[in-house]
Amino acid sequence: MILNRRFVLVSRPQGVPREADFHLVEKPVPNIGENEFLIRNHFVSIDPFMREWLKRDTYLPAIAIGDALRANTVGRVEASKHPRFQVGDWVQGLSKIEDYSIGGQGNIYGLVDVTRVSSPSAYLSVAGATGLSAWFAVEEELQPRAGQTLLVSGAAGAVGSIVGQLARMRGARIVGIAGGPKKCEQLTDRYGYHAAIDYCGKDVVALSAAIAEACPDGVDLVFENVGGICLDATLLNINKNALVVVCGLISEYNSEPYGTRQLMQILLKSAVIRGYLLISYAAKLGEGRRAIIDLVADGKIVYDEHVEHGIENVLPAFMRLFDGTNEGKLMLQLI
Amino acid sequence: MILNRRFVLVSRPQGVPREADFHLVEKPVPNIGENEFLIRNHFVSIDPFMREWLKRDTYLPAIAIGDALRANTVGRVEASKHPRFQVGDWVQGLSKIEDYSIGGQGNIYGLVDVTRVSSPSAYLSVAGATGLSAWFAVEEELQPRAGQTLLVSGAAGAVGSIVGQLARMRGARIVGIAGGPKKCEQLTDRYGYHAAIDYCGKDVVALSAAIAEACPDGVDLVFENVGGICLDATLLNINKNALVVVCGLISEYNSEPYGTRQLMQILLKSAVIRGYLLISYAAKLGEGRRAIIDLVADGKIVYDEHVEHGIENVLPAFMRLFDGTNEGKLMLQLI
Repeated sequence: MILNRRFVLVSRPQGVPREADFHLVEKPVPNIGENEFLIRNHFVSIDPFMREWLKRDTYLPAIAIGDALRANTVGRVEASKHPRFQVGDWVQGLSKIEDYSIGGQGNIYGLVDVTRVSSPSAYLSVAGATGLSAWFAVEEELQPRAGQTLLVSGAAGAVGSIVGQLARMRGARIVGIAGGPKKCEQLTDRYGYHAAIDYCGKDVVALSAAIAEACPDGVDLVFENVGGICLDATLLNINKNALVVVCGLISEYNSEPYGTRQLMQILLKSAVIRGYLLISYAAKLGEGRRAIIDLVADGKIVYDEHVEHGIENVLPAFMRLFDGTNEGKLMLQLI
Repeated sequence: MILNRRFVLVSRPQGVPREADFHLVEKPVPNIGENEFLIRNHFVSIDPFMREWLKRDTYLPAIAIGDALRANTVGRVEASKHPRFQVGDWVQGLSKIEDYSIGGQGNIYGLVDVTRVSSPSAYLSVAGATGLSAWFAVEEELQPRAGQTLLVSGAAGAVGSIVGQLARMRGARIVGIAGGPKKCEQLTDRYGYHAAIDYCGKDVVALSAAIAEACPDGVDLVFENVGGICLDATLLNINKNALVVVCGLISEYNSEPYGTRQLMQILLKSAVIRGYLLISYAAKLGEGRRAIIDLVADGKIVYDEHVEHGIENVLPAFMRLFDGTNEGKLMLQLI
């Protein structure tokens, strides 16, 4: 009998999540029925927005107490009574943090072609929700063009690092905000940013001044992943008719919201703040994935993965997103 | 020699403006030159956003220390060396708070037809920037339709009272937020609102609950004039793909910004916040004015004016906007 370890929510975290909020539960792997298949999960995506899933209903229901955490996973079919999925196939889907999952019960898993990428894990990073979030943000939401300045916060993060490269190809000036000199060096030397701003040790006034210096023509487009003083400092630098696309507000996930004080800038500049969720582009995901995989194959995009190991390490891995110690798209390898 | 009294800024107000921040300066009326004309200002519009003009550069430069306050005015030509403007003509323009102004020096004054309205003052209210702000907000920005719910804050205010009536004609459910039972009664009995919410004495939780009750299908469209807890309570009730048009943030003009805490809702609901300035529709003002005047003439729109008297009363009149004691579009009659 094979045991399935599942990473289960036992109490809703208040503030920073603690070990006591979760429990690793072992249960036998159930037998598969007709039109079902058994997946051995190899890679689990660890993403900032999971913190919101732990907190409340979002575009998906909150994780229920007693349920395993939701995550994008890449795995391999180990048994199948489903006509479309064969043993040995690699699949990707919005699944749970557990060793084994059952597919074909209304869960949506897709077959992925691992011959086109250097590792199946790419379907959680550049060819997964991360790369696709960057793709549709740049190609559909922001559409940066020559003469415009795009400011990206969380620029060295999994999505931001790809946004910089995609946006640069379109001819805009790309400026990134990140934490610490090492990440800032990556922005300009690896991820295609024209300029980098280190937010560490800066208050909103100092950060605003740094943005003004790095964006001498002001800011036309914003890709916001952080919120807090980062967004306020950004709003103080926007141009008329600016567009602020909000992809995340990571600075506010573990605490009470900071309170955005510079909303007046939206009025003064006839600007727009737009919330951006990848699921809005559900119908076009295949098209985006093909485009991104082609860019990687042609050497036009680089990407980094930060792989932690072992299902018992979900929480310390997750916390890296908030202390900024991940270096590339964060994921957990289970096998 | 005629003396011109001008209401001049002498120090930039900190917080709530005080009498000491302004001075009434008397100077002789200058002679007009070629292609100029002398206007006797009859009505001066008193608007919340003037507080921002006193504070900083907006879409217009900040009022300079020593300069008369900027305001929309309606006046009559008393002398003219300009071919298009004759003595006795009524004109409207973005002018200054003073008894007399000189037109034709690059200032933009327009002739207005007072035979189509009950008083020339209408060109500061329903047929002026107030009515036009409501018109383009409803017809261009919000475009409410049957099945949608539109929530308006500052709903009994000069713009909000007309927004309610215009939006109701388009078939949407219209809900207004205002301060006190008298204004709430006006919303439903006079301004076409289906439901009214009294914000007085409510914190963000109570206000959010009141909005939820008045908007059982959630909020699709927002016309925001207030900001502060009003906006936060609103954001807690928005539907997917909601549109929040920000026309003003009056609760924040005299104080440090409150800090909008519920911006996460924009992300969760793929919603949009858009800053709205009437000047974006500068090219269509004539068309909008004709449409609104027709609606008034046909008895389809009612409007209220609150007229205070005397240039020495600018500040007490202005403060009525912030304590909510104006009843209709606030203006000052100088003659």
